[in-house]
Amino acid sequence: PVSKLPDIGTSIFSVMTQLAQECGAINLAQGFPDYDPPLALQQALARHATTAGHHQYAPMPGLPRLREAIARKTARVYGIPEPDPATEITVTCGATEALYAVLAAVVHPGDEVLVLEPAYDLYGPAIRLQGGVPVYVPLPAPHFRPDWDLVRAALSPRTRLVMLNSPHNPSGAVLTAADLDTLAALLRDTATMLLSDEVYEHMVFDGEPHRSVLQHPELRERAFVLSSFGKTYHATGWKLGYCIAPPALTAEVRRVHQFLTFAVSTPTQHALADVLETDAAHDQHLPAFYQHKRDLFRELLAGSRFELLPVPGGYFQLARYHRISTLPDVEFARHLTREAGVAVVPVSAFYHNGHDAGLIRFCFAKQDATLQAAAERLRVL
Amino acid sequence: PVSKLPDIGTSIFSVMTQLAQECGAINLAQGFPDYDPPLALQQALARHATTAGHHQYAPMPGLPRLREAIARKTARVYGIPEPDPATEITVTCGATEALYAVLAAVVHPGDEVLVLEPAYDLYGPAIRLQGGVPVYVPLPAPHFRPDWDLVRAALSPRTRLVMLNSPHNPSGAVLTAADLDTLAALLRDTATMLLSDEVYEHMVFDGEPHRSVLQHPELRERAFVLSSFGKTYHATGWKLGYCIAPPALTAEVRRVHQFLTFAVSTPTQHALADVLETDAAHDQHLPAFYQHKRDLFRELLAGSRFELLPVPGGYFQLARYHRISTLPDVEFARHLTREAGVAVVPVSAFYHNGHDAGLIRFCFAKQDATLQAAAERLRVL
Ligand SMILES: CSCCC(=O)C(=O)O
Ligand SMILES: CSCCC(=O)C(=O)O
Repeated sequence: PVSKLPDIGTSIFSVMTQLAQECGAINLAQGFPDYDPPLALQQALARHATTAGHHQYAPMPGLPRLREAIARKTARVYGIPEPDPATEITVTCGATEALYAVLAAVVHPGDEVLVLEPAYDLYGPAIRLQGGVPVYVPLPAPHFRPDWDLVRAALSPRTRLVMLNSPHNPSGAVLTAADLDTLAALLRDTATMLLSDEVYEHMVFDGEPHRSVLQHPELRERAFVLSSFGKTYHATGWKLGYCIAPPALTAEVRRVHQFLTFAVSTPTQHALADVLETDAAHDQHLPAFYQHKRDLFRELLAGSRFELLPVPGGYFQLARYHRISTLPDVEFARHLTREAGVAVVPVSAFYHNGHDAGLIRFCFAKQDATLQAAAERLRVL
Repeated sequence: PVSKLPDIGTSIFSVMTQLAQECGAINLAQGFPDYDPPLALQQALARHATTAGHHQYAPMPGLPRLREAIARKTARVYGIPEPDPATEITVTCGATEALYAVLAAVVHPGDEVLVLEPAYDLYGPAIRLQGGVPVYVPLPAPHFRPDWDLVRAALSPRTRLVMLNSPHNPSGAVLTAADLDTLAALLRDTATMLLSDEVYEHMVFDGEPHRSVLQHPELRERAFVLSSFGKTYHATGWKLGYCIAPPALTAEVRRVHQFLTFAVSTPTQHALADVLETDAAHDQHLPAFYQHKRDLFRELLAGSRFELLPVPGGYFQLARYHRISTLPDVEFARHLTREAGVAVVPVSAFYHNGHDAGLIRFCFAKQDATLQAAAERLRVL
């Protein structure tokens, strides 16, 4: 058949994970923890797996008890009124499905969608599959914080949607309240909507808060806010995410969601609901948990020839390798995987044009022992 | 926002299930069993829910061991060579995601897609979301078997895809080997592809076989064949389906799948793989299991004023109610739910133009006691 995405190959995350397996390398490439979800969550899934009546279709927008638990958690974490579970929350097959559903729901052919680059690799292709036109705005290194003048210049009457991601993958950049105010002013008096990918919401360091778009009344009006239990509960393989948006926007997401997957695993939804109802402390310990990993990994590499970029949030460490190699980043990533036994992601994979700034990405959502073993291999380069 | 599907409301299946709950009606509307998956499968999920290392992203196309088990099962059931797990099988979030991924992967704006009506309610909207044009061909009542002359007349050089569904939802019609030959002749020398939705593959009655498109070498070359563990294992809420297609077509499906959901629940995939590896007998007992339910339900309604249509397969019974009411089918379905306490689906929901033939659909994938209780309420009308 004539491909609709002829230039798109297998996702870099799959490619590097497979190479890591082939080489027996330590996998710091694809973003997932090498530890398990909390035991209480595992046991909750085991319980619902053998509960009569928990095996058929969940309601299309998600189990009511899970949506209610999400509403309470969101209100608690962000100090805002509870989003309405009936009209504002939709449970999806990971934040990935939520992203795709939002794009399929609101991007009409010819619409422009503003993407800050580097960006998660699905944004561009998923926009193009809707007939949309991604308009890329570079995030300036080394801080990768938006230059709002560039954003202003890129907005047009055809901009249907702006895609935000804070904490940012791959850089870890975190938006401030002032950033959100600036964006709100730019979007005021436009019909442009906002997709805010906040899957790393609980990984913000150094005592800073995560500023959710949900806390900004003006932006929230036009925003789809996404999060992921995969990231928050160390269960990326459970594929459970959600989208919070005002009723009119939620109605559009659900119109697509009902045809995209219809609903998400019923026992898995029950398991998450159990844990959300009983343990409000889990997310509170995450910033310290991940800050420790960030600090450990940075200390371990302090004497190395990698130049470490700042990491205010997320679960990735960017590094320049110019003191080690002049290879293009894709080749250096392969070389590192094969020769040093540590798999990483080349940051050019986050640019639609393959822009190569000589950066690689390490995932530090790994056991301390894994980080130590990887650092031993990296320090000798 | 400007809706891309302004005419599409909440899926009839959700609407009727909700109405059933509100009225305390017996739900014979939405297609799901009111019994649980085999205990061995439930226990397998419980086991993997608490297995260390089974909680992160599965490989994008599905766990290799699950794809291998699907390949073996497919070869056993259809007497064909094993499809290649590496290049021909993709695990999806239910057959729903597979359907959407195929459409998103191959339907370009302006392409025509041939849909035999009545049809599952997602076909039309999912085609339109790709910018495709659904071309509807009626299936003549009461047998709802394709009139191939009408299909021939509807094909055009712009027909990208023909959508087949056998056993058919809602009618239960089953295609024969001769049907597949006729279709193959129609498509010969065209580039038109085929999407074959075979989720009810193990529910074919009266000793007839299910003829899979996979058994037809000429059609298989151009076909995406979908099935669903939800239907086969009485676990519609587990959301596990798959797509079998030749390597070039599979490559296109995966290009989209990696951005739609990326992967499906890892513990759930392990659980299905366990059961497929150890119990080949499960699917063999399904035809008799569902034939019993069909026969029971028909016997129970034999003395009623419903006129029952033939049911060669699937898990739905269509019925005319003209001896009971002259209401339009949507109103009759609501009336039946509210007044008689039995929820059903009006068949007009399966027509893009709401064509009303005075038919309702009962799901007989229910415990015998449920069917008996429902029939008691229906017999007095
Ligand atoms: C869905 S695989 C990618 C996981 C991830 O979030 C990342 O590595 O950036
Ligand atoms: C995804 S809800 C619809 C279930 C079904 O297959 C049907 O009722 O036809």
